[in-house]
Amino acid sequence: LIKQNSSKHVGFNLVSSYLFINFALGSRYVSKTATKSVSEFEYDAPSMKTAVPGPKSQELLRQLGEIQNVGAVHFFCNYEESRGNYLVDVDGNRMLDVYTQISSIPIGYNHPALMKVMTNPNNVSTFVNRPALGILPPENFPDKLIESLLSIAPSGMRRVQTMACGSCSNENAFKTMFIWYRNKERGYANPSEHEVDTCMINQSPGCPDLSILSFMGAFHGRTLGCLATTHSKAIHKLDIPSFDWPIAPFPKLQYPLEEFVRENAQEEARCLEEVEDLIVKWRQKGKPVAGIVIEPIQAEGGDNHASPDFFSKLRNIARKHGCAFHVDEVQTGGGTTGKFWGHEHWGLDDPADVVSFSKKLLTGGYYHRDELKPDKPYRIFNTWMGDPSKNLFLSEVLNVIRRENLLEVVTRSGKALLQGLYTLQTQYPHILSRARGQGTFCAIDACNDATRDSIMIKARNKGLFMGSCGEKTIRFRPALVFKEYHVHQLLNILNDVLAEHK
Amino acid sequence: LIKQNSSKHVGFNLVSSYLFINFALGSRYVSKTATKSVSEFEYDAPSMKTAVPGPKSQELLRQLGEIQNVGAVHFFCNYEESRGNYLVDVDGNRMLDVYTQISSIPIGYNHPALMKVMTNPNNVSTFVNRPALGILPPENFPDKLIESLLSIAPSGMRRVQTMACGSCSNENAFKTMFIWYRNKERGYANPSEHEVDTCMINQSPGCPDLSILSFMGAFHGRTLGCLATTHSKAIHKLDIPSFDWPIAPFPKLQYPLEEFVRENAQEEARCLEEVEDLIVKWRQKGKPVAGIVIEPIQAEGGDNHASPDFFSKLRNIARKHGCAFHVDEVQTGGGTTGKFWGHEHWGLDDPADVVSFSKKLLTGGYYHRDELKPDKPYRIFNTWMGDPSKNLFLSEVLNVIRRENLLEVVTRSGKALLQGLYTLQTQYPHILSRARGQGTFCAIDACNDATRDSIMIKARNKGLFMGSCGEKTIRFRPALVFKEYHVHQLLNILNDVLAEHK
Repeated sequence: LIKQNSSKHVGFNLVSSYLFINFALGSRYVSKTATKSVSEFEYDAPSMKTAVPGPKSQELLRQLGEIQNVGAVHFFCNYEESRGNYLVDVDGNRMLDVYTQISSIPIGYNHPALMKVMTNPNNVSTFVNRPALGILPPENFPDKLIESLLSIAPSGMRRVQTMACGSCSNENAFKTMFIWYRNKERGYANPSEHEVDTCMINQSPGCPDLSILSFMGAFHGRTLGCLATTHSKAIHKLDIPSFDWPIAPFPKLQYPLEEFVRENAQEEARCLEEVEDLIVKWRQKGKPVAGIVIEPIQAEGGDNHASPDFFSKLRNIARKHGCAFHVDEVQTGGGTTGKFWGHEHWGLDDPADVVSFSKKLLTGGYYHRDELKPDKPYRIFNTWMGDPSKNLFLSEVLNVIRRENLLEVVTRSGKALLQGLYTLQTQYPHILSRARGQGTFCAIDACNDATRDSIMIKARNKGLFMGSCGEKTIRFRPALVFKEYHVHQLLNILNDVLAEHK
Repeated sequence: LIKQNSSKHVGFNLVSSYLFINFALGSRYVSKTATKSVSEFEYDAPSMKTAVPGPKSQELLRQLGEIQNVGAVHFFCNYEESRGNYLVDVDGNRMLDVYTQISSIPIGYNHPALMKVMTNPNNVSTFVNRPALGILPPENFPDKLIESLLSIAPSGMRRVQTMACGSCSNENAFKTMFIWYRNKERGYANPSEHEVDTCMINQSPGCPDLSILSFMGAFHGRTLGCLATTHSKAIHKLDIPSFDWPIAPFPKLQYPLEEFVRENAQEEARCLEEVEDLIVKWRQKGKPVAGIVIEPIQAEGGDNHASPDFFSKLRNIARKHGCAFHVDEVQTGGGTTGKFWGHEHWGLDDPADVVSFSKKLLTGGYYHRDELKPDKPYRIFNTWMGDPSKNLFLSEVLNVIRRENLLEVVTRSGKALLQGLYTLQTQYPHILSRARGQGTFCAIDACNDATRDSIMIKARNKGLFMGSCGEKTIRFRPALVFKEYHVHQLLNILNDVLAEHK
């Protein structure tokens, strides 16, 4: 049942210049003997039975449409039958999934290690009795934090707060920065009676006119605080009241980065200058910048990269102006760039004041430097404060990452993927451009959004499920168990689609 | 192991005027023969080994304190050993829990029905593979919504959106109201280019100056949007930027409600008048009220009630002024008032436009009338959009509520509890006052906060764990499996504490 038919092993399967040349000429090298390198429990290859969405998905879409807006639903899934990198839908189609639930499945579907967590009777109570962690934590809570989240803490950070999702993580990270900033301003004295009174009615000085500086193209979530720092797509923001907070340009770099070093450095300098100007301007406006929030790679906004030098200088600007520096690793965290955190590529000892996470970490939350710890209880608080059952899964995910050297796998697969994307854009320069990536966190642009969407639908019908971002970008967000073997499946399908598109 | 020692069955165990008189005289009728009415799997009574927090809790507090602010932590729990209404801590103390993880445990600890959900192999995949529900829902998602959330939908509502927690539910409910309001204003035309452009930089008209009207004493969550409608305690709001949104007075009623009908009606009329004034005033300020948000009983703010007549008139005011009416049932929902939703006590066919929930429902989310459905995909969206594993538990909770007639149990226990609180406040008028409640959603005020806190600590050391709210209120939030038998345990312990306090 598990290892069904398939075995369409193809040219990209062995990375060699010979095969790349072969491929570049448009031919397709098929080898029946190539062995797969993925875990035993996985499928071999995609297997398609219908166009997607198939008839069963369409019927379910109709049913769900009576209850919710289903305009964003691709198809309905059979999660029981999905395995590793392969997502199975309700019509029996099996797709190579390189979008992984918007980048939130760390080690593939139904990983045996996670199944074990579920069937261990010692864990049942953790699932059945969700505690209010802030008031009544379970006995093993400190231990579980130490063996999971603290074992991967960013440099300089020993404190972590779990939350239910990415938006809540960023909202509470912002609150942490605001509280820290005002405590500094007050000289750590108690708030005045006037502050206490005015905060109850949303007025200054109790609710001060502080701001968070964010970047054009950023995505930090959709709750009202987060949304004021999100600037990726109008559909996210239209009609929702917001804060007058400063928005800096994010560098628009040319790719491959190593070929445009000088031009990119100029562009980054321009953006950094603008950041400093905005900080000064907003201070003069009476809305000082308490914190700067940024993604190591802008994901939803179109997979926009910046150099380690840019981030290092930005971190210094934050320090110089007394702003907290918040790195949002909700999408970049968890190993997908080849290091556990995207910011590790910057090589800084003190990369940030706050680092938030969610998605592949399974629990939301944020780390922060000691200096930013809340001075009183109940300032950072809610009913659940996360979910210990997610910490259980995370511990096991981290074990698997270590045991199976998945960061190395990501680095290796990422190189093969990016190399393959370079080859494709050379072969189809009128369709593809700007291939870029770090680890398997890769992307490539289509010539326009209609072409991008058409490529994605055609690829899906051939068994490759990808994501989109920005205006015309395809983003690749495979799980950490995505091996070179899968890279070649991906590239072959993409090549077939592009060959037909020509 | 499960049914250990105990059997301190006491006077309140049989509700009779004789015993109430007996009790009122300060004596304590002890019966070894009384049978317990709770499920077989539960313990009989509290059993205390140490003061709380005991030595093990204190050591764990020290450990967790290195990682997080632990100022709000009461003690550490042994959830494996907890059963039904009894919470066991790491020092082996077993307490009658009438706070239930801030009112979020619907049918007690380790209910056998929920254990079964966990051990059913068909459910494993739902826990292990958390989907991005908005794009790739599981096959059974519509069915699970129909058998769980839609089976308890508030009157007039057939659409529901799940979310991860209460704050996210309210944030997205607010967004839904803003989108609905602007679509109305625009005559359902497409947004202008100017709106699309300005929304990307947080400016009007794309991010319009709309507001949500809330009430003093309200609690709707702690993310920035929710926090702008929360006005219960300064510690929640201090130092966090907010919106200039209108805040109406919530009626300050006298209890018991039936004894102060005329006075209370006057007070409610005053508040309703103020609501209309604020709506007009904020429209004139250029910040029209898109929605009104209110709790059926203000919980965190001090268990403040209002009459069905008040809510009915408020709902009409919302309709008259074109504001959406959002009832926040995060704490009142799930059966604790004796009806599934707190707003059912108003007796309205069309009680609200939006009803949000979380806590006892195990999943967050909100219902809304068809008219408020988002016009386009991705306007209400995030990565997870809830968690289907919580829907699995919710289905089973609803089965138990129906099978065990738990709404009747709540009504019966609630009457006994409120009657007992009346008796206590008659007996200790210098300490207690303003007993009030609906179902087991009961509360009583102490003469001041220090006395309240002292009563709670003493009760905890005798095996009764309660919650606080408002300035000097004790709140009772037992699970739905809280029987009259447990009411009497509660009242006896409270009586002992009060007798010593005198």
